[in-house]
Amino acid sequence: MKLRINNTLIVPMTQEGLYFKGDIGIDGKYISWIGKQPQGFEADRIIDGTGYLAMPSLINSHTHLSMGLMRNYKDDLPTLQAWLGEIFPIEDKLTEDDILKASRLGALELIQGGTTLFTDMYFQPQATAQASLEAGLRASIGVTLFGELSDNVERMKEREKLLAPYLQEADGRIVLNCAPHAIYTCTKETYQYAASWTREHQTILHTHLSETEKEVQDCLSVHKLTPPQYLSEIGVLQDLKGMLAHCVHLTESDIALISSLDMTIVHNPSSNLKLGSGIAPIASYIKGGIPIALGTDGASSNNNLNMFEEMHIASLLGRVSGQTTKLKPYQVLEMATKNGAMAMGLQEKIGTLEVGKEADLILIDLQKSHLTPLNDPFSALVYATQASDVATVICQGNILMENHAMKTLNENQILRDVNDTWANVLQR
Amino acid sequence: MKLRINNTLIVPMTQEGLYFKGDIGIDGKYISWIGKQPQGFEADRIIDGTGYLAMPSLINSHTHLSMGLMRNYKDDLPTLQAWLGEIFPIEDKLTEDDILKASRLGALELIQGGTTLFTDMYFQPQATAQASLEAGLRASIGVTLFGELSDNVERMKEREKLLAPYLQEADGRIVLNCAPHAIYTCTKETYQYAASWTREHQTILHTHLSETEKEVQDCLSVHKLTPPQYLSEIGVLQDLKGMLAHCVHLTESDIALISSLDMTIVHNPSSNLKLGSGIAPIASYIKGGIPIALGTDGASSNNNLNMFEEMHIASLLGRVSGQTTKLKPYQVLEMATKNGAMAMGLQEKIGTLEVGKEADLILIDLQKSHLTPLNDPFSALVYATQASDVATVICQGNILMENHAMKTLNENQILRDVNDTWANVLQR
Repeated sequence: MKLRINNTLIVPMTQEGLYFKGDIGIDGKYISWIGKQPQGFEADRIIDGTGYLAMPSLINSHTHLSMGLMRNYKDDLPTLQAWLGEIFPIEDKLTEDDILKASRLGALELIQGGTTLFTDMYFQPQATAQASLEAGLRASIGVTLFGELSDNVERMKEREKLLAPYLQEADGRIVLNCAPHAIYTCTKETYQYAASWTREHQTILHTHLSETEKEVQDCLSVHKLTPPQYLSEIGVLQDLKGMLAHCVHLTESDIALISSLDMTIVHNPSSNLKLGSGIAPIASYIKGGIPIALGTDGASSNNNLNMFEEMHIASLLGRVSGQTTKLKPYQVLEMATKNGAMAMGLQEKIGTLEVGKEADLILIDLQKSHLTPLNDPFSALVYATQASDVATVICQGNILMENHAMKTLNENQILRDVNDTWANVLQR
Repeated sequence: MKLRINNTLIVPMTQEGLYFKGDIGIDGKYISWIGKQPQGFEADRIIDGTGYLAMPSLINSHTHLSMGLMRNYKDDLPTLQAWLGEIFPIEDKLTEDDILKASRLGALELIQGGTTLFTDMYFQPQATAQASLEAGLRASIGVTLFGELSDNVERMKEREKLLAPYLQEADGRIVLNCAPHAIYTCTKETYQYAASWTREHQTILHTHLSETEKEVQDCLSVHKLTPPQYLSEIGVLQDLKGMLAHCVHLTESDIALISSLDMTIVHNPSSNLKLGSGIAPIASYIKGGIPIALGTDGASSNNNLNMFEEMHIASLLGRVSGQTTKLKPYQVLEMATKNGAMAMGLQEKIGTLEVGKEADLILIDLQKSHLTPLNDPFSALVYATQASDVATVICQGNILMENHAMKTLNENQILRDVNDTWANVLQR
């Protein structure tokens, strides 16, 4: 299909300060032109973009999609550890079908908030892959490793088999990666296996790291090394691409170490505050040369998957005094778009609006009291835009939502199913 | 008119943890019953509240409503002082008509986000009063004092006269108070006059206080006193009710002083971060016995008037480590409802849903992916609800918005007028 979006305010995210009025042509999966329609392009469909802003769709680089099931549950606990003590027993009861229904809820919320790629880490990942395929989303599905090596080798093999049909059907939108949970839940051998598997399959290692002071202190007590030093020491961070979620507590030498590797830190500001983990000094990490992406974490520690709110909070926390530099709105937008693509090695395919890239983009309704006057679009996007301003979402050239109407998912059915599922889980 | 809201989830904000399904009856201005409809109440209109949550409408306790005109303008400045250096020259150019149009924009945004009372401080306050009257909102209109005493006595007299007709027409919804801007812009005599005027008229003194480290340091240099100590020393804080905006930097003795007076601190977390002022340790202030209300500050330093986002950010910042206690969602909801009413001396009239109080309430649409499952409604309201989930807004028994349709204001006209006005201001 050939699609034209007319007369819209384009924020391509290719250059700081760049925005302009124009049209966008999409041919099949690809952006075929931007600006003025060339001779010979006959659109099958036209979307009027007047009064809208077009930008790359957002990338949520660290989440646990199905945890929306535990939204607003056991919120008032003081630490990550206390909260996990409540969540783990619930997770033990979850079936693959529960996770499928919860993943559909997550996919719905992602699309409604303008996100088309998420990097996930959870149980029963084939159910999350199925929901992503149904939704038409991109997904980096992490097979979560916990505990001893022997269990994990089996788990990985089994998951590869279960996930294969979804990967095959998704036209490159779904990839599988290996996601050892954290240094306090996985053995050294499990991490080393995860690294070997990642190198062999040329994919991404996704893990939690240096999330809390306790994690850092425990690691120092046992290994006399910080968590990044420990993973480096056992050979897990070298010769592969990695996504390190949280990294709230890094030392100067951790920053130097990570910046020498092919790693992206995924900032999760809401979850870090909500679980009492602290504020990651992101501006210092950027100054240290580390690329930063943005994630919401799971909706049970956030409590939503709203990347606009996450950008706003990241930006505000980037101005806490004591940080060496301030985060600019454009930098925060990069974290939520092109840096997420780079972290996944997808920078040639998505993350900006450029001719030849795949068409992952959103239209934001600017006819809103809180976006009037618009003035600087970058400020508007980071400080004032709400997830609900996203009207239309396109992923790989397919329309997933148009003027707030879902095209791939049945919203009412998904909400009913999740309420039924959760009531059922609580009674088990 | 007699109005009934059917079968809704009621969060009355009278008690922590209390919520229940029921109906609400409104007779004229007042809530006449809650729970089950009594014999003899014949509703003229019924709103189906199935799938909605009813709660007291929100109170924005510190804003500069018309500053929405400067939204997303000159955002990337490092400090409050640098930003004011850009904003003051623009403000010098604003006419009363500009401020009327900007106030209508603010009124629209407040209603759309579920706020029905705001405490304001700005120039040409009669224009803001006019917009509030048109909108059907409650407003605490502050006459802003700047500079020397002589100018301010004249200004206050003139404003009282200009505002009188709006106060008279508003059936108690609009009140006038005296708002000396800050200790770095007003003389001692101006503050003393403001205090006398406030005592005489039995209203509220509204001022900025201890917003930045610079303000505190400058005050210590000149007066050898902290800003609250200075205002206390010159007799401004005694024998009156006051609202102290920001208070980011208080000492232990400031906390003891303020808690001994009839003062509410208004927390403005987004603005404090955005302008680099810091994080107010609100949990410590609460522990010290000071009541806390919540405000967005002006939309040019926020950049919206979204009290749901403000509650979320306040709650997350209340979990920054180093604070003595953590803020619970219910406490944050109190800040945005009953504490705002108390600060204004309106606790007998509004701030909770109780029989006999005036009917200021909102209905929130719960049929949303990010509110499913709902689990704890207090968590849901603070961590997950978006301003755009507010469907219906009632103030003093009048419907201001019903199922997202504006009843008192012309949305399209207001947005057009503001864009025209702002383009015009920039060319002056």
